[in-house]
Amino acid sequence: MLAERYPYYLANRPRQPNAELAVTDKYSGEVVTHVALADAGAVEEAIAAAVRATGPMRRLAPYARQEVLEHCVRRFRERAEELAFALCVEAGKPLRDARGEVTRLIDTFKAAAEEAVRIEGEVLNLEVSRRAAGYRGFTQRVPVGPCSFITPFNFPLNLVAHKVAPAIAAGCPFVLKPSDRTPVSSMILAEVLAETNLPEGAFSVLPTRLEDVGPFIEDDRLKLLSFTGSEKVGWELKARAGRKKVVLELGGNAACVVDRDQGDRLDFIADRVSHGAFFQAGQSCISVQRVLVHEELYDALRERLVARARALRAGNPRDEATTLGPMIDEPAARRLEGWIQRAVERGARVLTGGGRRGALLEATVLEGVPADEPLSAEEAFGPVVLLQPFRAFDEALRVVNEGRYGLQAGLFTNDLSKAMRAWDELEVGGVVVGDVPSFRVDTMPYGGVKGSGLGREGVKYAIEDMTELRLLVLRQE
Amino acid sequence: MLAERYPYYLANRPRQPNAELAVTDKYSGEVVTHVALADAGAVEEAIAAAVRATGPMRRLAPYARQEVLEHCVRRFRERAEELAFALCVEAGKPLRDARGEVTRLIDTFKAAAEEAVRIEGEVLNLEVSRRAAGYRGFTQRVPVGPCSFITPFNFPLNLVAHKVAPAIAAGCPFVLKPSDRTPVSSMILAEVLAETNLPEGAFSVLPTRLEDVGPFIEDDRLKLLSFTGSEKVGWELKARAGRKKVVLELGGNAACVVDRDQGDRLDFIADRVSHGAFFQAGQSCISVQRVLVHEELYDALRERLVARARALRAGNPRDEATTLGPMIDEPAARRLEGWIQRAVERGARVLTGGGRRGALLEATVLEGVPADEPLSAEEAFGPVVLLQPFRAFDEALRVVNEGRYGLQAGLFTNDLSKAMRAWDELEVGGVVVGDVPSFRVDTMPYGGVKGSGLGREGVKYAIEDMTELRLLVLRQE
Amino acid sequence: MLAERYPYYLANRPRQPNAELAVTDKYSGEVVTHVALADAGAVEEAIAAAVRATGPMRRLAPYARQEVLEHCVRRFRERAEELAFALCVEAGKPLRDARGEVTRLIDTFKAAAEEAVRIEGEVLNLEVSRRAAGYRGFTQRVPVGPCSFITPFNFPLNLVAHKVAPAIAAGCPFVLKPSDRTPVSSMILAEVLAETNLPEGAFSVLPTRLEDVGPFIEDDRLKLLSFTGSEKVGWELKARAGRKKVVLELGGNAACVVDRDQGDRLDFIADRVSHGAFFQAGQSCISVQRVLVHEELYDALRERLVARARALRAGNPRDEATTLGPMIDEPAARRLEGWIQRAVERGARVLTGGGRRGALLEATVLEGVPADEPLSAEEAFGPVVLLQPFRAFDEALRVVNEGRYGLQAGLFTNDLSKAMRAWDELEVGGVVVGDVPSFRVDTMPYGGVKGSGLGREGVKYAIEDMTELRLLVLRQE
Amino acid sequence: MLAERYPYYLANRPRQPNAELAVTDKYSGEVVTHVALADAGAVEEAIAAAVRATGPMRRLAPYARQEVLEHCVRRFRERAEELAFALCVEAGKPLRDARGEVTRLIDTFKAAAEEAVRIEGEVLNLEVSRRAAGYRGFTQRVPVGPCSFITPFNFPLNLVAHKVAPAIAAGCPFVLKPSDRTPVSSMILAEVLAETNLPEGAFSVLPTRLEDVGPFIEDDRLKLLSFTGSEKVGWELKARAGRKKVVLELGGNAACVVDRDQGDRLDFIADRVSHGAFFQAGQSCISVQRVLVHEELYDALRERLVARARALRAGNPRDEATTLGPMIDEPAARRLEGWIQRAVERGARVLTGGGRRGALLEATVLEGVPADEPLSAEEAFGPVVLLQPFRAFDEALRVVNEGRYGLQAGLFTNDLSKAMRAWDELEVGGVVVGDVPSFRVDTMPYGGVKGSGLGREGVKYAIEDMTELRLLVLRQE
Repeated sequence: MLAERYPYYLANRPRQPNAELAVTDKYSGEVVTHVALADAGAVEEAIAAAVRATGPMRRLAPYARQEVLEHCVRRFRERAEELAFALCVEAGKPLRDARGEVTRLIDTFKAAAEEAVRIEGEVLNLEVSRRAAGYRGFTQRVPVGPCSFITPFNFPLNLVAHKVAPAIAAGCPFVLKPSDRTPVSSMILAEVLAETNLPEGAFSVLPTRLEDVGPFIEDDRLKLLSFTGSEKVGWELKARAGRKKVVLELGGNAACVVDRDQGDRLDFIADRVSHGAFFQAGQSCISVQRVLVHEELYDALRERLVARARALRAGNPRDEATTLGPMIDEPAARRLEGWIQRAVERGARVLTGGGRRGALLEATVLEGVPADEPLSAEEAFGPVVLLQPFRAFDEALRVVNEGRYGLQAGLFTNDLSKAMRAWDELEVGGVVVGDVPSFRVDTMPYGGVKGSGLGREGVKYAIEDMTELRLLVLRQE
Repeated sequence: MLAERYPYYLANRPRQPNAELAVTDKYSGEVVTHVALADAGAVEEAIAAAVRATGPMRRLAPYARQEVLEHCVRRFRERAEELAFALCVEAGKPLRDARGEVTRLIDTFKAAAEEAVRIEGEVLNLEVSRRAAGYRGFTQRVPVGPCSFITPFNFPLNLVAHKVAPAIAAGCPFVLKPSDRTPVSSMILAEVLAETNLPEGAFSVLPTRLEDVGPFIEDDRLKLLSFTGSEKVGWELKARAGRKKVVLELGGNAACVVDRDQGDRLDFIADRVSHGAFFQAGQSCISVQRVLVHEELYDALRERLVARARALRAGNPRDEATTLGPMIDEPAARRLEGWIQRAVERGARVLTGGGRRGALLEATVLEGVPADEPLSAEEAFGPVVLLQPFRAFDEALRVVNEGRYGLQAGLFTNDLSKAMRAWDELEVGGVVVGDVPSFRVDTMPYGGVKGSGLGREGVKYAIEDMTELRLLVLRQE
Repeated sequence: MLAERYPYYLANRPRQPNAELAVTDKYSGEVVTHVALADAGAVEEAIAAAVRATGPMRRLAPYARQEVLEHCVRRFRERAEELAFALCVEAGKPLRDARGEVTRLIDTFKAAAEEAVRIEGEVLNLEVSRRAAGYRGFTQRVPVGPCSFITPFNFPLNLVAHKVAPAIAAGCPFVLKPSDRTPVSSMILAEVLAETNLPEGAFSVLPTRLEDVGPFIEDDRLKLLSFTGSEKVGWELKARAGRKKVVLELGGNAACVVDRDQGDRLDFIADRVSHGAFFQAGQSCISVQRVLVHEELYDALRERLVARARALRAGNPRDEATTLGPMIDEPAARRLEGWIQRAVERGARVLTGGGRRGALLEATVLEGVPADEPLSAEEAFGPVVLLQPFRAFDEALRVVNEGRYGLQAGLFTNDLSKAMRAWDELEVGGVVVGDVPSFRVDTMPYGGVKGSGLGREGVKYAIEDMTELRLLVLRQE
Repeated sequence: MLAERYPYYLANRPRQPNAELAVTDKYSGEVVTHVALADAGAVEEAIAAAVRATGPMRRLAPYARQEVLEHCVRRFRERAEELAFALCVEAGKPLRDARGEVTRLIDTFKAAAEEAVRIEGEVLNLEVSRRAAGYRGFTQRVPVGPCSFITPFNFPLNLVAHKVAPAIAAGCPFVLKPSDRTPVSSMILAEVLAETNLPEGAFSVLPTRLEDVGPFIEDDRLKLLSFTGSEKVGWELKARAGRKKVVLELGGNAACVVDRDQGDRLDFIADRVSHGAFFQAGQSCISVQRVLVHEELYDALRERLVARARALRAGNPRDEATTLGPMIDEPAARRLEGWIQRAVERGARVLTGGGRRGALLEATVLEGVPADEPLSAEEAFGPVVLLQPFRAFDEALRVVNEGRYGLQAGLFTNDLSKAMRAWDELEVGGVVVGDVPSFRVDTMPYGGVKGSGLGREGVKYAIEDMTELRLLVLRQE
């Protein structure tokens, strides 16, 4: 169902230069299609076009922005199977997961369509002291201008949607560099955008070689850089970003706490943790990496989790029965395999899994991993989960907070005061009580603290970042 | 410390006509002071003055409204002991409780001072469809105009404050009829208001005979009627209120649920319930009247509650050691005594208390009161609390909901899902988890559903009711 | 295109009893269809079913409410021509106007679909004083319960939509009594609602004889009464409404001010005023009834307006060329004809129009109408507009404010300080600068003050009325 | 009235090391006092103490934060004259202006006290799609942690207050480096803070040599850097700020447009422009630097402005009659004198002023300054104003937008559509209609775009920056 080749989109229009990127099936490793590759000149052209589109985008009426987004929703629904297939092939994502991502793509654009007509302001009382008698204030949110987006391979549609859809709602032109490992999904998205009457220059989607990426980061005509990807790259970008606002959605080593009162819910918890840990081969920023279990429940949950992990069906993601696909490539799988081995050398026990075939790493459950091992302290970004018992709840909170990251944390408890304490004490962007940290609905504020990033996505929150307050003061005659 | 006589205030100024109201010490029954009594002509004058003050009050700048309220805060602090003494004498309120009410009076005015400069509006996006292209909207909140306030005897200062302070913040002139049993506190409050530069006519505080009260309710020049008092009177007023907005803060027979998991907190719970039930002789809309206790904890809590009730020290409220004062008058105490007797005849057991000396009813704990007895189904408004065991949590929720009232409910539990279920299912204005229903902080939204009233007080919420949205649409050239 | 007969809908299901209402073509007077008529028993059944549906509607998830509303949007789009035709016939509305109303019906349901997932609450800081240390507050908005809706003939679809769509979004079951002169549109709407999976009892649409209407108003199981209609009836309902919340959208005699600086925009203004005055034969609550024109522009605007009025094409609304249809019935047209004659007897001059053929009254422009004549002071609700010159802007504001009504006012000016002054001084629900008072977009807050009503509609605002705040207080352990 | 020497404050406590900074009277140049100087070790200690204070500050209850801020308000009122005198001497600010700044210091702390109990969150509906059934969301704002503040010399009290007061309200400890030219005011402020019960480490105020400033910018234990100062320094700091959030309040060359319709308001406008341009010797970020006047009014306004400039009384700021004080030092005055000379060489005409005596530059009005001269294109930051005629309004808007800066713009017009156009089109943080761009009230959102900075101050807005959203998701059982 994939095309033989995909153009890139520069200033709303497809372009097919000679240079191309070969895109592989992440399971078989075979090249399945090609995507046009933008050079430095194309990047410059795209930025210049985005700058020219600033005014037209700002003046595009809210209902017109809504219509553009609603068109996308309709078309994504029509092309849902094609999109899911593209994801499946280029990202190695089991079909069922791929379909789930398409559903969320639609949710994200739908939410943005609804928000597009809800960007409003405030009428301020300025008469707070005698010297301001007769003044009144008004605010509106105006688009910040051209935005720069750099997106990762793990959700090639929905993490792109979380930047693109709010940008359209907010009235910002943008240039997008998708992951060069999974560019196809973005290209189909661009194809759909090109069907709309967005002003010329409103969008460019440009697969770009690393050496040509500089302007996405450094060009000061771009007013906001929104990056989703690795921690290391993210913080480097911030330092190079010049005057831009910077939004960073980076990684994590998300923890999940299972409290003592959950004895009768262990099957449910095992299901959720297994899903949170192994869903799309653990390649999610909020994949469950560490599970802290109250010592009284530890053995029982361990047993169930191991069983769940073993029940997963690894294989070709195109196969409807597959529940565990490959990691993005073999080097990634090797890197994680190496971390597992290092941990084992320092005393960790592999309870199940650990094996690797090409990019396909088995669903792996470990215990006894030292906290300072990469497997625990770094972002694993693969189908691995570590178990660890705890005795006192406060100790569990402390362990969660020790990490370098702070994206989301899960907490299985029905204890009201512990839930509130976790909300108050955990240094993360979000605490999920009653589920794994991997929970995300596309309208909620989402983002990390500490090493995990800066700013919040989630449609309305992204729009806030992509607009700025402009005050009007009226002096009453 | 009380004056020999108090004038009423008409259009900001004291007036001392011949007719007077004798005010008694609620403990001794002796007449301790007199307050001037407004006749029909005075009421008419006050309303006409309030109408004339509508424009000036609306134009009073927010910072000027704030200054008025801050002046009150300062003066209440200076006169705190005098205010507490007045409450103690005219309402029979133990000194400690009276001081507590003065503290809350100050909190309420302070909150209103802060809100006075925060009455703001919104800038609306109207371009939701093509036909609205070029239009934008703005809202501001403008004062509704002259307001009518009728207040009860049980919190002669703070329930007055909950109407008066928001009115000043909102820019509404008002006429206030305080309870004829406790008019002194309002008069001191009026005295302080008269020190400010509120526009003439901005306030009138008029003790009025029942036969002259009509215009407070029916006069259509008054735009809002805010009444705190009995259920029966409240709903009658609504039918007579003409075109006015109506806010009703009526009574309740507040219930408190003690769940199975609270075994180690019974001492704390007994303290809180005893406070919630017997504080100012139970004469509070959110006094604890019914306690539903899980059957496993029933005996243990009963024992503790009975002990608490017995430990209260009934007597002269002027005595610093007194913790239980008289009810507002002997007929009120007799009415409740009668209800107790009726209940006993139908099988209820008095665990402690039940005796009466004049207006002083003993702190009374009962069990086995049939649900359809007035003592359970009506507002007791006295120092009485009924205990009742339950087996299943849902049963407890159902019992709370059965009543005719719906003000607040308390729930002692640490079970997260039960707390959420109670919030979702209980038909009340507020659910208090971890404390008795009697909890109120003066900035929170407060008010009932079903028989308990209409609308919400709490400074910001009252201001909302006292203002109305005025839209501005601008068609862009 | 109309069916031969229409059932009513009781508890989501069609029912075809013997009693029927004959519906006439408002132009020809011929009976064109019949609609089933509910008797007292049916009304009681519907209310009881609504009460039973309270819980299920409250628990219907937001996304499920959204789906119901989106289904309606889709179906209204599909059946748009049929709906427009029904309006045209039963309300005598020119086809173009009828199509416009269908567009707005869709807008209203679309806005409600978007709001259905945006009914949210607040996390409150309660720690405003030492005594509240450790407490926190949360609010949610819960549906008020079964609602009662009574709607008029002039917008048989969109004024119904403004009650029905927010009710579904808010989670309130409802019983609706449409105007007995235009019940068909509501029946088609009910037909579409019946296709959804709304819980049984969620809606009943019941044409009802006057003598059976009582429970819609008085039954206290219904928690809110929302009425759109005449002033006289509206305020009577309020007095009979018992404990219900009451929203009244009543009439007006809307004024429009044309300021001195508008000399070069008179053609545009004449277009807009003509539209505002004669659109659907002036039968709109915000029809332009009075035009105050600066004396320097008076003659020039009068001339243009008269020309516009004469250019209207009166006739059969089914005819695509018709721009002026009949009033709702001959008695209505006669009533207004009589007002015109009374005014003429007191010195008013008819500049054009004044004639009547059956229910069809000519587009009529007058000047010199005394302010106390019904034609000026009452709601004309027909194709009549009065001109009046003014000299000073403040005088014009005063005239606008003198009336008994206060719905919306129009103001043609480009003077910033006058626009602000009008916003501050005009006692109306909305001031429209740069257009006629007849402007309304379906999401904006809409409603009157003084005689024009109580409360605001506009999807989000109606939802606010149909829900109430429920507080949760948590005492921190 | 100044002390002989001032300690610095490290972790809430005064410390008097050997190293000291000599502070001069900016008019006489004489050393008037000494302030202790922090070395690298002290900076490290302060940061470590701030980190330790993170938890205690977060847990400090809102009412307790309010009490701290209210204490400051009280003390600033008591010490107002002393503070004004310090400003007068160390900043060379005329006494009247100095008193004005103290008033605003108080306003800022008062606003922060009020906001301290209003930092709240939202209850989110997450059930936007079937997959989120049963989830609900809650947000709270938690303090970001230790903050770093660097402040300039021109408002040594109020620009410090705009960082310090919101930090206390938000619950953030901070380290502050005041300008080394005006450290005394901050030291008095620190003295007052030291009287409160802020947790140890909550604040450090450290005059620091340039070579020791690094950690204020680069230390990643500090979570936010808020800098007010020059454009050049600001953007450099951003690149060095590591993972911190960065707020930059930089300079501008604020423009003011006087439109054609303002002929009868020229005296008022001349007063305001003169104030906006020469107030505290033009050393304000929003000082009026460029005035664009409609050509028809140009001559008349020029004449009035020149007269105003000449009427200013330059001299010793301690003298009550002085209205124009010195610039901060002689090099600054020389720099600006040089710019004037450069401009004159390229054809500019000095209409009045231009002379310099030490740091005292005369109030200078010029015309004909080329747009690319530093005097026009850079931030003058001195008592200089440039006049320029324009013909078409759109041309004026274009000129305002051409600059590199975008802080605030002023617009004298009474034309509604032009005001709206300016609000929509001007690329600035705030548009002031009816007054000069120099208008600021301390609660309004304030800050620039383009070269003028990043983020908004104004108490509530600064608090937003100093807190971050923390989500709680509850999965309903």
